[in-house]
Amino acid sequence: MIRIGVIGYGYWGPNLVRNFHEVGGCQVVAVSDTRAERRALVEARYSSVHATADYRDVITDPRIDAVLIATPVHTHYPLALEAMSNGKHVWVEKPMTTTSEEGVRLIDEADRRGLVLHVDHTFVYTGAVRKIHELVNSDALGRIYYYDSVRVNLGLFQSDVNVIWDLAVHDLSIMEYVLPIQPCAVSATGVGHVSGKPENIAYLTLFFEDSTIAHVHANWLAPVKVRRTLIGGSSKMIVYDDLETSEKVKVYDKGLKLGEQGDARYQVLVGYRAGDMWAPQIEITEALQTEATHFLDCISNQRRSLTDGEVGLRIVRILEAATRSMSCRGQVVELDRPTVAA
Amino acid sequence: MIRIGVIGYGYWGPNLVRNFHEVGGCQVVAVSDTRAERRALVEARYSSVHATADYRDVITDPRIDAVLIATPVHTHYPLALEAMSNGKHVWVEKPMTTTSEEGVRLIDEADRRGLVLHVDHTFVYTGAVRKIHELVNSDALGRIYYYDSVRVNLGLFQSDVNVIWDLAVHDLSIMEYVLPIQPCAVSATGVGHVSGKPENIAYLTLFFEDSTIAHVHANWLAPVKVRRTLIGGSSKMIVYDDLETSEKVKVYDKGLKLGEQGDARYQVLVGYRAGDMWAPQIEITEALQTEATHFLDCISNQRRSLTDGEVGLRIVRILEAATRSMSCRGQVVELDRPTVAA
Amino acid sequence: MIRIGVIGYGYWGPNLVRNFHEVGGCQVVAVSDTRAERRALVEARYSSVHATADYRDVITDPRIDAVLIATPVHTHYPLALEAMSNGKHVWVEKPMTTTSEEGVRLIDEADRRGLVLHVDHTFVYTGAVRKIHELVNSDALGRIYYYDSVRVNLGLFQSDVNVIWDLAVHDLSIMEYVLPIQPCAVSATGVGHVSGKPENIAYLTLFFEDSTIAHVHANWLAPVKVRRTLIGGSSKMIVYDDLETSEKVKVYDKGLKLGEQGDARYQVLVGYRAGDMWAPQIEITEALQTEATHFLDCISNQRRSLTDGEVGLRIVRILEAATRSMSCRGQVVELDRPTVAA
Amino acid sequence: MIRIGVIGYGYWGPNLVRNFHEVGGCQVVAVSDTRAERRALVEARYSSVHATADYRDVITDPRIDAVLIATPVHTHYPLALEAMSNGKHVWVEKPMTTTSEEGVRLIDEADRRGLVLHVDHTFVYTGAVRKIHELVNSDALGRIYYYDSVRVNLGLFQSDVNVIWDLAVHDLSIMEYVLPIQPCAVSATGVGHVSGKPENIAYLTLFFEDSTIAHVHANWLAPVKVRRTLIGGSSKMIVYDDLETSEKVKVYDKGLKLGEQGDARYQVLVGYRAGDMWAPQIEITEALQTEATHFLDCISNQRRSLTDGEVGLRIVRILEAATRSMSCRGQVVELDRPTVAA
Repeated sequence: MIRIGVIGYGYWGPNLVRNFHEVGGCQVVAVSDTRAERRALVEARYSSVHATADYRDVITDPRIDAVLIATPVHTHYPLALEAMSNGKHVWVEKPMTTTSEEGVRLIDEADRRGLVLHVDHTFVYTGAVRKIHELVNSDALGRIYYYDSVRVNLGLFQSDVNVIWDLAVHDLSIMEYVLPIQPCAVSATGVGHVSGKPENIAYLTLFFEDSTIAHVHANWLAPVKVRRTLIGGSSKMIVYDDLETSEKVKVYDKGLKLGEQGDARYQVLVGYRAGDMWAPQIEITEALQTEATHFLDCISNQRRSLTDGEVGLRIVRILEAATRSMSCRGQVVELDRPTVAA
Repeated sequence: MIRIGVIGYGYWGPNLVRNFHEVGGCQVVAVSDTRAERRALVEARYSSVHATADYRDVITDPRIDAVLIATPVHTHYPLALEAMSNGKHVWVEKPMTTTSEEGVRLIDEADRRGLVLHVDHTFVYTGAVRKIHELVNSDALGRIYYYDSVRVNLGLFQSDVNVIWDLAVHDLSIMEYVLPIQPCAVSATGVGHVSGKPENIAYLTLFFEDSTIAHVHANWLAPVKVRRTLIGGSSKMIVYDDLETSEKVKVYDKGLKLGEQGDARYQVLVGYRAGDMWAPQIEITEALQTEATHFLDCISNQRRSLTDGEVGLRIVRILEAATRSMSCRGQVVELDRPTVAA
Repeated sequence: MIRIGVIGYGYWGPNLVRNFHEVGGCQVVAVSDTRAERRALVEARYSSVHATADYRDVITDPRIDAVLIATPVHTHYPLALEAMSNGKHVWVEKPMTTTSEEGVRLIDEADRRGLVLHVDHTFVYTGAVRKIHELVNSDALGRIYYYDSVRVNLGLFQSDVNVIWDLAVHDLSIMEYVLPIQPCAVSATGVGHVSGKPENIAYLTLFFEDSTIAHVHANWLAPVKVRRTLIGGSSKMIVYDDLETSEKVKVYDKGLKLGEQGDARYQVLVGYRAGDMWAPQIEITEALQTEATHFLDCISNQRRSLTDGEVGLRIVRILEAATRSMSCRGQVVELDRPTVAA
Repeated sequence: MIRIGVIGYGYWGPNLVRNFHEVGGCQVVAVSDTRAERRALVEARYSSVHATADYRDVITDPRIDAVLIATPVHTHYPLALEAMSNGKHVWVEKPMTTTSEEGVRLIDEADRRGLVLHVDHTFVYTGAVRKIHELVNSDALGRIYYYDSVRVNLGLFQSDVNVIWDLAVHDLSIMEYVLPIQPCAVSATGVGHVSGKPENIAYLTLFFEDSTIAHVHANWLAPVKVRRTLIGGSSKMIVYDDLETSEKVKVYDKGLKLGEQGDARYQVLVGYRAGDMWAPQIEITEALQTEATHFLDCISNQRRSLTDGEVGLRIVRILEAATRSMSCRGQVVELDRPTVAA
């Protein structure tokens, strides 16, 4: 029986507590939040869970094996570090840290102490993204031409990070998981419309060694919610719409037919092929259930998480580069090889 | 009775001939196309129209008042220039020319000879875009925050221009018409997936003097057709979906409520406002009818076209800058003031 | 503080317990269910709620003021009657009873004892239906021409009632609430595709004294979920799509323009008018919260429920008539004036 | 070379002329319409086609082999009869006639004279319906449970027929083609909202010998256009949405899993199966091209049309029965075996 403590019971914390409460093999024993009304909510819902104002009660509780950190981004690093110093396994919300230096430090600490460091890249654990991973990796799409995502809505303005760190991070974690290659450079543009606040609309292009390209539109100020990703391949193409209730992933048998030439004088036709569309059935288990089970399994069997610190760090490096590029109106920023060692 | 000659009866030419055939006040007298099967089509459809293989027959025909040019982009300049040299008014397809130098030269020629030079930015003449123009200019949206457009489909690969010149040009012409301000710089990224062909996927950011931002995603290699534009304003926001049959333009009473603060510690809430949605009725006259009428009116009354050479040139300048930026992976390119000489 | 007991913790019971748990002014003290695993669920979720296998523990508990009955339809009558005999106010799931005789008997009992008898017609308490009610009653639609609803999905086959009693009942309760008039006759058709089971697909037409008409398509065997209602009026028309996340209710300024005649010989044109569409903002409070509050208010202030026994009875009468019509392949069945007295 | 005459150049006639003009193997030589402005349109568009005010010029023209009749329904019978009396093959718009007696008489005349009698059930010649036909007949759906169609819009009020004869006729012709069985009885309901006009909203149920059921909702007074058909089978189910531009036909691997029982006390679960969805590519040739080719082939090779008089008659019989049922508020009307004498 793994004992769990949770720091932060704001927007995401309640989902963590509920899922760890219902998954087998663990017990949520304590939750901390500085706000009295959030603690009251914990107590009303879970009579067996201890609610405290002080996160140290969680981090130092000797009964607790693992700490889940669901607080603002800039607190991830100190909280995770302190939790590991106390011998706790750590689950930290995305993005892992606000700088890559902090990320490297957390990875070192986890490695040194043999602790599990898991970053909550929830989408990686959804049925839809797992199906896309399976399709890409079985080579069903052929060569990947592009990954294009629109992730916009009328959303909360975060005060400590810009919209890339809040929304685009989801796409970066999905790409990390489904694409067989890593980006080598980034160009980003974006602006803020509220004085004193970070950028609320941003466009992010990722370059790869070959002609693959990826792009994310992230926007906190859109009148409609859109969660739509196009993945183009040489054999097939995917439309992944996360807001669809049934057919979230559609696979189109469409693509180019090279070598077929049309009218040479006016415009050369690169012929295209249009065939059937197919929407595979998607596993509907709640992603956090799958992810919680995976986290507990990593602890029990001393395995690395699928979305471990290294993965979290690679994404933080891209976020840093994107923010730098955005401040130079799109100037390309090269990405170093995302390894820690060196 | 204005007499019309048409050069090029490929993809768009038939639409021009049909609309000028049906609109009053003019007569299509000749069409040229180098392809015998296209000329046969003209003859089968319009017994009164002369079909010829040689564009010079059109350009030098003394009966003809105005020449419509619907040929590949790189031929626009020489054909338009030759037509004006022969005293013809000119309607040229978008984009006007392949370089801004050519554009300047055409404007000069038209001005010198007192001829109408009209660029076919068709969308400017649609009911939907005219309604958006009206909304923006009546200040219904408040301050404009952003213009974001996705224009993708499985399309013809053009051999002489990249996807920006083919698809994004539509959005540039719409912005030119509806936005009260001009962009000052551009950053673009994109790649080509077919060896020896221009870029088939591209992302284009436009910067303005203030914090307004615009972005276009243009793609010839998408599994689905999308024509969707979001326009965010401080008072209201628009979703314009050109593929919707009925409600093409939706106006959302959504936006920010500044000054309202949520939890100061965790994340500062820039409150938002959500109200009704409203889809104004859109005039359904075919855009080319409206545009043809306007062109004929400009000729008859010696007026400048709403989409004249100056407008066409401003857009060519942006296209040039975008192509230059794209070759430098997003590096920003400043736009000169889009005036001709002066 | 009103004390609540709940009978049945199957599909709907958990929603009742959760909402009464969270709404103020009451306390859920006991839940009965014959299934041990359902009782275990109650206990895991609400440490303060007593779970019992015997519904009599709920009905006879002297601390309990009101009993919520969320059991199969054929048990509604005996349970509600026994609860009222024990002086409890009653909330019963839809449909109220399996026969109108039972319904009359429950109304009598409630009246005689001065108890609240509330039927859970949940949709009446949704923001969308309340908005439609407001529109119809403010005469925004003009004369009502028709109400047409499609309510289909791949659903559970009920063993004790046919699909009309399970799905169409929702539309009957909505019509009861929003339409100013009562139906006078019904014609229904339908079949069962599973041997030994009641009809799983049905079509229900309601006639009114004037030319208003209503129709419901109810189907447990559809490949897609549809919840769409059209309401046609002489001035405006509504499309109500309950599966839309944002614009659930759309109001179309469309209708007939009588008196305008087209070509008299071929086909007389009853001209139509097409104007703007408008989607009013909908209150998003969970319907059961609103409904629970209303029920508690009825108890506290000795008022009749908006969806009381009389309303429940009128709907049971229509369901009975529809089932009778269905067994005669659509033969019309007249509805008596739906009053109890007589 | 088959020579074609057309009677009626109103709403549908132009489509006929255009398609027969472009399909090979025939020539449109004359078009009649009583309205001068319609004749002017013919002349403007087709300089080679003779336009006349008198349909007799078409019917008696010795050069003409086949007559296409695109006039109001009540004129179909006299015009078709007179055309056949003059030895012309006949293509007549749907519905074939206003009574079954007239239909029988036309069939007799065609048979006696060895002429082709073709009814324009256009949908039968669309790629979508042909694909559905193929799926049903290859037994991909298993046993057919139901056919359900919604065909509504803000449409022209016809003066000589009710909405069933105008809209539902399409579904009847589709069912005739795709279903392996014939209906045996019909129940219909509907009302008219415009005084002195036929019913503008109608609901039509068709019964079959087994438990198959079919239903059509036809409505000239709907705020939105809907063309959606659900076809339920024991193995798979189809959603056919004719307004979808790309995926018109979706095949769902969904259905019942009989024999699996859930909780016996509360509600017996007829389990269901949910699998992939598949949208086959649909042939996009314009239906009228396919149909015109078929008609010409029938004439050239003395074959019966796929949608011949017998098919047209079966549908007229259903329309007659539906109208009779509608006037009795849904009372079932048995259908005779739809054979002509024999």
